[in-house]
Amino acid sequence: MYVTNVNSTEINETMPGVSLRWLLSKEIGTPHFEMRYIEIKQGYNSFGDPHEFEHEVYVLKGKGRIEGKDQTVEINPGDAILIFPGEKHRFFSTGRESLEMICIIPNGAEDRMKDKNFFCKP
Amino acid sequence: MYVTNVNSTEINETMPGVSLRWLLSKEIGTPHFEMRYIEIKQGYNSFGDPHEFEHEVYVLKGKGRIEGKDQTVEINPGDAILIFPGEKHRFFSTGRESLEMICIIPNGAEDRMKDKNFFCKP
Repeated sequence: MYVTNVNSTEINETMPGVSLRWLLSKEIGTPHFEMRYIEIKQGYNSFGDPHEFEHEVYVLKGKGRIEGKDQTVEINPGDAILIFPGEKHRFFSTGRESLEMICIIPNGAEDRMKDKNFFCKP
Repeated sequence: MYVTNVNSTEINETMPGVSLRWLLSKEIGTPHFEMRYIEIKQGYNSFGDPHEFEHEVYVLKGKGRIEGKDQTVEINPGDAILIFPGEKHRFFSTGRESLEMICIIPNGAEDRMKDKNFFCKP
């Protein structure tokens, strides 16, 4: 059994206004999938490029929208979201507080973001 | 893209005091892992048997403890938990409100619990 808390997990700034905490990663022994905590500050947004693996997201706090190829969806706390493999998607934080979410991905799918120096201009 | 909300997802009572909502399941197209919302009412507990697949859990509300084979761990909101494959574990809800959690498992690992009539005496 492995237990950590979001408040004791190191924060990686992946791009301006977006931070990522690796709650459960393959480095601590996840067999198949990794759990991250993502925070997007008011007015900022995530990457928008599609990738070959899925995202499963649960919205904890804040408000936002996801812009896909053919649709835009408003998201709120309590929403569970499946982004299919290869699907274009960009998360926007539109509320008064940060948009905070749990995001699960297959093991190793975003290892490059484990580098504390990872940084990509928007 | 598929979006649902916890409040619009059907509730399955899996055993007394424990309910399960299938937020993202293979039936709607998850490629590898499924997301459930679990609520354990005050004073109740989950199954305790080990199984061959992992659980990844994020605690949203309430307080509780997990009893394993050799350890007992207190859990609180913001905790992320990895239960390793084959590891004995039982969740107890010990706070004044229900213990509410997101739980991710490999596709199909608990299909028997998708049956609304699934019921197991504690």
